[in-house]
Amino acid sequence: METQALRALLVEIAHLDSALALLNWDQEVFMPQGAAEARAAILASLSARRHDVSISPTLQAEVARLQALPAGTLDEREQALVREAADDLADALKLPTEFVARYAEATSKSQGIWAAARKANTFADFAPALEEVIKLNQEMAGYLGFSDSPYDALLNLYEPGLTSQQITATFTPLKEALVPLLREAVGNEKSSRQQLSGHIPQAEQLDLALEIATALGYDTTHGRLDLSTHPFSTSFHPTDARITTRVDEDDFWVCLGATIHETGHALYEQGLPTVDFGTPLGQAASTGIHESQSRSFENIIGRSKEFWSYWYPKLQARFPIFKLSLDEFLDALNAVSPSFIRVEADELSYNLHIILRTELEQALIEGKLAVRDLPAAWNAKFKEYFGVEVPSDADGVLQDVHWSCGYFGYFPTYTLGNLYSAQLWHAIQKDIPDVMQSVARADFKPFLGWMREHIHQYGRQYLPQDLLMRATGEPLNPKYFSDYLKGKYGSSSNSQSTSAISQTTA
Amino acid sequence: METQALRALLVEIAHLDSALALLNWDQEVFMPQGAAEARAAILASLSARRHDVSISPTLQAEVARLQALPAGTLDEREQALVREAADDLADALKLPTEFVARYAEATSKSQGIWAAARKANTFADFAPALEEVIKLNQEMAGYLGFSDSPYDALLNLYEPGLTSQQITATFTPLKEALVPLLREAVGNEKSSRQQLSGHIPQAEQLDLALEIATALGYDTTHGRLDLSTHPFSTSFHPTDARITTRVDEDDFWVCLGATIHETGHALYEQGLPTVDFGTPLGQAASTGIHESQSRSFENIIGRSKEFWSYWYPKLQARFPIFKLSLDEFLDALNAVSPSFIRVEADELSYNLHIILRTELEQALIEGKLAVRDLPAAWNAKFKEYFGVEVPSDADGVLQDVHWSCGYFGYFPTYTLGNLYSAQLWHAIQKDIPDVMQSVARADFKPFLGWMREHIHQYGRQYLPQDLLMRATGEPLNPKYFSDYLKGKYGSSSNSQSTSAISQTTA
Repeated sequence: METQALRALLVEIAHLDSALALLNWDQEVFMPQGAAEARAAILASLSARRHDVSISPTLQAEVARLQALPAGTLDEREQALVREAADDLADALKLPTEFVARYAEATSKSQGIWAAARKANTFADFAPALEEVIKLNQEMAGYLGFSDSPYDALLNLYEPGLTSQQITATFTPLKEALVPLLREAVGNEKSSRQQLSGHIPQAEQLDLALEIATALGYDTTHGRLDLSTHPFSTSFHPTDARITTRVDEDDFWVCLGATIHETGHALYEQGLPTVDFGTPLGQAASTGIHESQSRSFENIIGRSKEFWSYWYPKLQARFPIFKLSLDEFLDALNAVSPSFIRVEADELSYNLHIILRTELEQALIEGKLAVRDLPAAWNAKFKEYFGVEVPSDADGVLQDVHWSCGYFGYFPTYTLGNLYSAQLWHAIQKDIPDVMQSVARADFKPFLGWMREHIHQYGRQYLPQDLLMRATGEPLNPKYFSDYLKGKYGSSSNSQSTSAISQTTA
Repeated sequence: METQALRALLVEIAHLDSALALLNWDQEVFMPQGAAEARAAILASLSARRHDVSISPTLQAEVARLQALPAGTLDEREQALVREAADDLADALKLPTEFVARYAEATSKSQGIWAAARKANTFADFAPALEEVIKLNQEMAGYLGFSDSPYDALLNLYEPGLTSQQITATFTPLKEALVPLLREAVGNEKSSRQQLSGHIPQAEQLDLALEIATALGYDTTHGRLDLSTHPFSTSFHPTDARITTRVDEDDFWVCLGATIHETGHALYEQGLPTVDFGTPLGQAASTGIHESQSRSFENIIGRSKEFWSYWYPKLQARFPIFKLSLDEFLDALNAVSPSFIRVEADELSYNLHIILRTELEQALIEGKLAVRDLPAAWNAKFKEYFGVEVPSDADGVLQDVHWSCGYFGYFPTYTLGNLYSAQLWHAIQKDIPDVMQSVARADFKPFLGWMREHIHQYGRQYLPQDLLMRATGEPLNPKYFSDYLKGKYGSSSNSQSTSAISQTTA
């Protein structure tokens, strides 16, 4: 294979990435508290080394050699490999190694500072670390380059080609549709998530979560489920793709919802071609496409009537707290109610959480908002979008881990993932009309098989927009998601059945 | 500081070592089964990279520069740093990078093969992997160089300066003393470990183990306790030194004994000077010295009457299975009985287990014993030393993880650790005559403090023999250990009190 040498060089980078991912996973899941400083230094050191390997002269020469081959030498897939490797290399060459180390160390440390500040509900404790991380992100944007906004440079790290202009163009009409839809839904509410409260011990919740994750297709010989403050998924290789969740013993959905979400991510990682491990062809297409997988499993499957027609009787047999009828249960699970916490939000208000964060982080990166003014800006926007007052910074601006990790430009991919997932869902139903009948039998193979065939197997062979075009036959169209939400939450909707949405979007 | 540049270069190697140690820890504790092949490749890749960094031209130049400094430029400690770094460098320069990668991959894979073979009790399944690992060790010995036996080159990896001649000279008289002592003790037995059987659920055993580890001085903000098939300790930094144990719900000592043993190791790691992290001054002196710490805590403390005079009433209050009197309990805990399993052996037969393995592995490395003849050789020696027939390979030649990891030359350091620990113990009692009265109050500070002062703080500043000389005032003297065993297990002994030993060794 013409790309054999390139592949071997990329796998060397990937092995360092695997070690870094394990160091990060361990930091969130098992690392003793007093090891934070040493861990930050280890991460900084390995990140710098990883960076040096990713710009090695040998790699540069090999990429140049392959780019100079006569047209037609490489097949489509190998061409994509070279294109993406060259892109990665070009980006990496823009960053000084000492910056990469400084960035890794600062973001590792700031996570601990954030966690303590959130616990103590004192934004002031986190502010200096956040200022530092913002400065580092601005510095990074400067290295990477941009035409309009430094935020564009950061967005591109998560979603290749995405600009803040596109974000605004997509998010503004969505926001304008969501705010009244939320008001309307709240006015019409007949049930609430609180109807599902009830005590289930942690161990039993974890058993259930793993059982459902496995049923969805998650392969636990190539993964595992652990606890962490903030649920996440990570992968060291397609044969070792791990997920975490968290537990509220009085609210089963906190654990199960997070587990199903992370299972969606992990199924993507487990579905990437092992033979291409380490190369762009063995990597996820983008953060937005990744999120389309988690949101599909969490919402389109995990909140559907068909899914619960199979699982709810099992829950009822196992846990005495489930006394509602199936329909009442589904109404409560899908109830719309402005929540302060993003990860516990219903599908409708979720995107307002994202839009709020996106607007704020763009202002922070562009220098239009100072960190000291951030809590007030957060609370004002929250009042405007959700109609309620934020009770504390811990339930407001301090709730998410992302900024402490340096993830600026990540948040919008959540909503992008929702848009993608609705469009994919529309296509799945056209291809497999009876897909939800399978779900009702707890047979997720048709659904997962479609994702494997249309998304997972390609890795980064296609750019996100091209991948979506191939999978659904059209470019990104936010209409599918608006229709989905209107179908589910509009005044005339049946709030439970995912199948009903296909009627509104058909 | 003159050594500042060298220290920075060494810390870079250490950060890769930390990542490798985490990859190994995770492999034993949490890694999903199906990830073994990918993990082996990651370990191979990072080991090769670690090796390249450890022989970098910059490092070579810096070591040469420091070695060429006029006498008196460096203080004693900095001189030691340069001496040890130069030794490590010289060893590393002998190994080809491709060999290091090949070795790491083969030993990572063979661990999984061994675990399956042990479970299935089929030595034949493990034999090819073992042959491969032996060949690799012979190849390594060839690179490292030796005068008498290739086994010497391997011994040196664990105990600098140790030769197979010294091993034979020490182990032969020990064996000749132990075999009759074992026969005598077995003849005199009035109690057995079986008297301590009784069901305690895993979670409660782990709680107790962690409580006692913490009481001994183990700092859980800088460490943690997990389960693994084979108990071990590892360290990523003095602020992150972890231990593992295993549990037999019907035999509490399996978990507690292993935990106290590993705690001894971890206390050494937590006691190394943080400021010297990554340099030889922040590393343990040798495997034998390391083992002296674990064996001291496991045996001299953990099997003593004073220790149990405090803890046994607590165990009795907590677990109804402890119906024996304190004296009966101590007799049972210290009972001598030939066991097939090394890690469950009493203190007396333990060293016969080690001698048996040392003799066999030396023969394997020297090419005097073929892998296909190994099980028969094991069983014959076992019969000779212990007087009993080995019932199965799983309880015989397959029981230990070491050979599958490539650890040839490691086993003798266990007995060396016992010899060191008895000699250190003799010195401790001279320095702190009432040390066991503190132990009886569950105050381990005097004991641990002595180890911190005389062993831990120095790292590799002194060679193992010099460290022992400074700590005890004389070179290695196996008499202390023989006296200890005779005092404890000889026909006229009081089998329980560790203090009694000081009388026999005084």
